[in-house]
Amino acid sequence: MIFGGALTAVSTKKAGRPTWLYQLSKAGKLCVPAMNVNDSVTKQKFDNLYCCRESILDGLKRTTDVMFGGKQVVVCGYGEVGKGCCSALKAMGAIVCITEIDPICALQGCMDGFRVVKLNEVIRQMDIVITCTGNKNVVTREQLDRIKNGCIVCNMGHSNTEIDVASLRSPELTWERVRSQVDHVIWPDGKRVILLAEGRLLNLSCSTVPTFVLSITATTQALALIELFNAPEGRYKQDVYLLPKKMDEYVASLHMPNFDAHLTELSDEQAKYMGLNKNGPFKPNYYRY
Amino acid sequence: MIFGGALTAVSTKKAGRPTWLYQLSKAGKLCVPAMNVNDSVTKQKFDNLYCCRESILDGLKRTTDVMFGGKQVVVCGYGEVGKGCCSALKAMGAIVCITEIDPICALQGCMDGFRVVKLNEVIRQMDIVITCTGNKNVVTREQLDRIKNGCIVCNMGHSNTEIDVASLRSPELTWERVRSQVDHVIWPDGKRVILLAEGRLLNLSCSTVPTFVLSITATTQALALIELFNAPEGRYKQDVYLLPKKMDEYVASLHMPNFDAHLTELSDEQAKYMGLNKNGPFKPNYYRY
Amino acid sequence: MIFGGALTAVSTKKAGRPTWLYQLSKAGKLCVPAMNVNDSVTKQKFDNLYCCRESILDGLKRTTDVMFGGKQVVVCGYGEVGKGCCSALKAMGAIVCITEIDPICALQGCMDGFRVVKLNEVIRQMDIVITCTGNKNVVTREQLDRIKNGCIVCNMGHSNTEIDVASLRSPELTWERVRSQVDHVIWPDGKRVILLAEGRLLNLSCSTVPTFVLSITATTQALALIELFNAPEGRYKQDVYLLPKKMDEYVASLHMPNFDAHLTELSDEQAKYMGLNKNGPFKPNYYRY
Amino acid sequence: MIFGGALTAVSTKKAGRPTWLYQLSKAGKLCVPAMNVNDSVTKQKFDNLYCCRESILDGLKRTTDVMFGGKQVVVCGYGEVGKGCCSALKAMGAIVCITEIDPICALQGCMDGFRVVKLNEVIRQMDIVITCTGNKNVVTREQLDRIKNGCIVCNMGHSNTEIDVASLRSPELTWERVRSQVDHVIWPDGKRVILLAEGRLLNLSCSTVPTFVLSITATTQALALIELFNAPEGRYKQDVYLLPKKMDEYVASLHMPNFDAHLTELSDEQAKYMGLNKNGPFKPNYYRY
Repeated sequence: MIFGGALTAVSTKKAGRPTWLYQLSKAGKLCVPAMNVNDSVTKQKFDNLYCCRESILDGLKRTTDVMFGGKQVVVCGYGEVGKGCCSALKAMGAIVCITEIDPICALQGCMDGFRVVKLNEVIRQMDIVITCTGNKNVVTREQLDRIKNGCIVCNMGHSNTEIDVASLRSPELTWERVRSQVDHVIWPDGKRVILLAEGRLLNLSCSTVPTFVLSITATTQALALIELFNAPEGRYKQDVYLLPKKMDEYVASLHMPNFDAHLTELSDEQAKYMGLNKNGPFKPNYYRY
Repeated sequence: MIFGGALTAVSTKKAGRPTWLYQLSKAGKLCVPAMNVNDSVTKQKFDNLYCCRESILDGLKRTTDVMFGGKQVVVCGYGEVGKGCCSALKAMGAIVCITEIDPICALQGCMDGFRVVKLNEVIRQMDIVITCTGNKNVVTREQLDRIKNGCIVCNMGHSNTEIDVASLRSPELTWERVRSQVDHVIWPDGKRVILLAEGRLLNLSCSTVPTFVLSITATTQALALIELFNAPEGRYKQDVYLLPKKMDEYVASLHMPNFDAHLTELSDEQAKYMGLNKNGPFKPNYYRY
Repeated sequence: MIFGGALTAVSTKKAGRPTWLYQLSKAGKLCVPAMNVNDSVTKQKFDNLYCCRESILDGLKRTTDVMFGGKQVVVCGYGEVGKGCCSALKAMGAIVCITEIDPICALQGCMDGFRVVKLNEVIRQMDIVITCTGNKNVVTREQLDRIKNGCIVCNMGHSNTEIDVASLRSPELTWERVRSQVDHVIWPDGKRVILLAEGRLLNLSCSTVPTFVLSITATTQALALIELFNAPEGRYKQDVYLLPKKMDEYVASLHMPNFDAHLTELSDEQAKYMGLNKNGPFKPNYYRY
Repeated sequence: MIFGGALTAVSTKKAGRPTWLYQLSKAGKLCVPAMNVNDSVTKQKFDNLYCCRESILDGLKRTTDVMFGGKQVVVCGYGEVGKGCCSALKAMGAIVCITEIDPICALQGCMDGFRVVKLNEVIRQMDIVITCTGNKNVVTREQLDRIKNGCIVCNMGHSNTEIDVASLRSPELTWERVRSQVDHVIWPDGKRVILLAEGRLLNLSCSTVPTFVLSITATTQALALIELFNAPEGRYKQDVYLLPKKMDEYVASLHMPNFDAHLTELSDEQAKYMGLNKNGPFKPNYYRY
């Protein structure tokens, strides 16, 4: 969104990190200051973790009416989206394992109670396969060939490349549309794989985004634009910035009343002891929440 | 820890953020490069979130044998330690509310199912009061006066200042040591407050630190020292640094085999698509996990 | 369902306990043996606890797209249905309290981490009100008058009497149908209450029943009919019976393969030690699961 | 406990179902009325489900300081005790699977998110093995031979027969007492198995029973004795009875104030509609809670 000679990059929901913006900047081709709103805390947690925790259940129910209890599920990728999906499915009684490339995220998965596996080790037993990696060809044709009859395959990641859907558009396989957004892909031996949204984003195609989440995203974006517009000459150069923490905190505080949440205020003595301004920002930049 | 002209600041477990180091640096008085190991991802998550999730239960049980189910608990501070405490107590059937000064953490608390309150609003009803703010005088004498008979008061934060214990060493109150680390503070009307570890850290005084967590912390610290020692002239100045992400990932990967966890490797094509080196680091510096 | 001079009373899904059958029997007016299939273990747990755990989320999402995280919810009735609803909503980050008339169920609620309240104490603060009592007028007009703007009101219990919907069909209130199964009831001051399915069963009106649950219910009913049909003269009199435990176990065992679940078999020595037949039944009649 | 010519059989805590009493009765050798207090609802749920949910964690921590996160655990038996253990360990991030002989309990395990396995299938991978079956030789010497180095083995069931400890008292194995209640059993190849409490009940040997649970059990037993003592001639014959439901409810209601729990009262109209007395009992005898 370009506005007054500035730019905010929240992109459309869940389009993921604005890598293109960093690439433009690196190449010296960014001609205005830009703000990477996508990676502000409130945006990340709401659009990804908290929203996906609910929309994975919603998307699967609306399309397939599957019962989650006892189902074996593999979630590829344990970032914010994967964490949300895993937490929700585990809570509903599914038996969830994950795949990861990053050892830190993998260790988090262990601590949260998920087996960390390679997809090939488990693909035959799974009832549901969910991708949330942001990568491509995470589920290959070879793996789809080994999946069991009736398995549901869907994507919660950032684009339609995670599942190699192209490889399924092949003469030996029959596609049967059973409902909007739901295809049965049928193998010559009769095996059916239930593909949702043709591999596009399940949460955008088959679920809804709560207005509360939209409000947070829109508020963040609007504040970023106002900041860029009002900033004194020189504060922002032709580079990519993260939203100032104080604004991130402001977005959060604007949404407190929805929950009848009452913030505690620091006393002067406490603020001094902590070396903080009573009005924030309350955390160093590297704080992870 | 000073070693070969360098410094790592992991401090003792849970002594919190090395603010003093940043202050030294800011004042231009830091005479060697230093690494803030405390804020590496693995250190933070294991020492704080995952370790406290278990040690809050352990510390309370060993000292008081309290049954968690149905107990009303307030946790002051919803940082990593607070998140760990809340998650554990909620899972055991306690009814947990939180206090926060930071609207972002408060909003996380809402999303995780905890009421965000001011301590004064709930202090009368609580069965257990836990501090994990890193601040001072979070529970004041005035609030302790209003607490109900039999309430347990303890501290999981970074020092013994969170509960105003000094104010309880007062002639009108009687202290009765009922067990190691457990005092009954008795009001003139007979009301007893159960104070644990005289307000010092519960998890260090009344619980234990699993060897697994110690291993992660020690590995992180050792790697930081090796990095500082081996770094070519000029890589590190007289400043405070965070552990390079690749090392953080390395610490995590060294601990994978404990969980029989199998990492997935990127294919060349996938690494290129993501703009990543196959061996990491896998995330930008601002990634929050 | 009458079949071969016998009767099974599973009733329609979730129509609750077949009280009428027991009344017929008590009055001496039951002219055939009958089996109360509704209260078999598998039926109870699947139709009520496990199914409702999923359908409460599904029903609310499909109708309102509400975000569950941080929402204040009261669930009236903590039987199997209430337990399912509470567990799911808590897992999604809602802050849930319950009402109960039965102290045993109330104590279970406490242990599971839910505040036990009277509806009047909390009605003003709630974002969602859910009834699952099987009773009538659980939410009265007076309470609906005090509910806050935007509150969602729905019923997961056994009939459309739990919410006093009749009292809302009154000239001073305006009804606005915003979507199938969703009405806004508008008070003179502009307050809107979101009423789902006009107070009928949410899970039947706005959600779906997974085929797995239907399979369990249908299997149970079929086996009950077969048992009544094949039973030797005199085994069943003109009375109401529960499904023999062995059959209940058989229904469960027929559904094991869906989960790739592997049962352990008792050795002869173990069976003798326990005083059990190796093929079951494995529990005394009063066992509660 | 014999009192006034009557008998209550609550046995010692967790000694399980009073089978001997039913056997006496069956053999016509019971010379007084007896009440099986063990199987009253409050006793069952508190001593077994809710108490074990906490004491499994407590017992393991006090003896071994094990970190639960990421640990692979098998729980043998998914009755009330097993359910409590599984729920707690899952909540702490352990990866839990179960063994069962009863298909109904097994199906509950599936729905609660636990893989149902035979012990032999998983024994090699486990970090912790817990028995809660009430049976004997559930973990055999052959299985102990296959367990991995450092595995913790303990018993939460009803006697010291579940793990075949006798088979470990064998010349080729060395026992090393590392701490009170903790033995390392050392195989010739150096493998160590950590045996807790020599296979006796972990929760009695290495944990504590909260006073709240003792209060419930003692209240139940006292009420049973009072009932037997006061009952008019002929109400109870020389047989085994369950506690009348109304008393079970009374025990629960006596413990409500601990939780500041407020029961709802039926209106006259509601009581009539439900066919209930306003003061209970509120459920039919076969109700499972």
